[in-house]
Amino acid sequence: MTTTATATKQFMTSDQLLEDWQGHRNLTRRVIEAFPEKELFEFSIAGMRPFSKMALELISIGGPALKGIVESNTEAHDEESFHPKTKEEILKKWDEETEVINHYFSLITEERFQETFNLFGQYEFPVYQNILYFIDNEVHHRGQGYVYLRALGIEPPFFWERF
Amino acid sequence: MTTTATATKQFMTSDQLLEDWQGHRNLTRRVIEAFPEKELFEFSIAGMRPFSKMALELISIGGPALKGIVESNTEAHDEESFHPKTKEEILKKWDEETEVINHYFSLITEERFQETFNLFGQYEFPVYQNILYFIDNEVHHRGQGYVYLRALGIEPPFFWERF
Repeated sequence: MTTTATATKQFMTSDQLLEDWQGHRNLTRRVIEAFPEKELFEFSIAGMRPFSKMALELISIGGPALKGIVESNTEAHDEESFHPKTKEEILKKWDEETEVINHYFSLITEERFQETFNLFGQYEFPVYQNILYFIDNEVHHRGQGYVYLRALGIEPPFFWERF
Repeated sequence: MTTTATATKQFMTSDQLLEDWQGHRNLTRRVIEAFPEKELFEFSIAGMRPFSKMALELISIGGPALKGIVESNTEAHDEESFHPKTKEEILKKWDEETEVINHYFSLITEERFQETFNLFGQYEFPVYQNILYFIDNEVHHRGQGYVYLRALGIEPPFFWERF
């Protein structure tokens, strides 16, 4: 790749990354909201997880991962301890995690973004790559949620509306 | 948001962003490859586009958008002039665009990433936001491609394998 000449250019600041991520999280919140209560927990295509399970995966990653990075704690993440029975419970937790993410993200230094960390005792990558992965993973699963909504005859929110 | 304190931190360099993007493009290429020839052009869920159309959208954005940014050309993008009939034609074009992206991306300066540009005469945002959008849009549609593959009984490539 012809990237040598670009090695020292900043692509974006950390506050710009956080704003982008929280914009994605707002959109994912609207996708959760768009599902009817029952289908959020039950609807599936081809044996894939219902969208509630994907949302729980995202909840178990973002905030807990940043906390782990800041505290240099490599404990495994916990997808099992939160068992919401309603959409409202998921959305409430989602909003709590918004603040957790803002708090811990702001504590990560510029140098730290470049340091390798064994996230959850399993994902040993530079911190910035781990954070990009959280966002990509969210966009990936949300894209699947869009197909579920279409298959349910529901118009998904606009992909470009983030705030 | 509690982002004030982070305003001057670099999140990542432009070469790191390009490497991440090309890793995503490698994975999307494998998703294109995973479709049987016929289903790539015809299979759909709930009236959505077949994956070939999504791939053509991606091809019409990345390279042409960077060229537009570098040349300050706000012409609309062209999703209509390339009409591949086979998977092989799509993959060939995909690989050509890999080089186009590397070339034009390397010509964007650090200052330019922060400047607002009216991409394709339609999307007026800072250049870094436009570029993030290309990647997000790709991850979004590829996630939909994963559902198509599952519905076809085909195991998609691992999400985390990029190179």
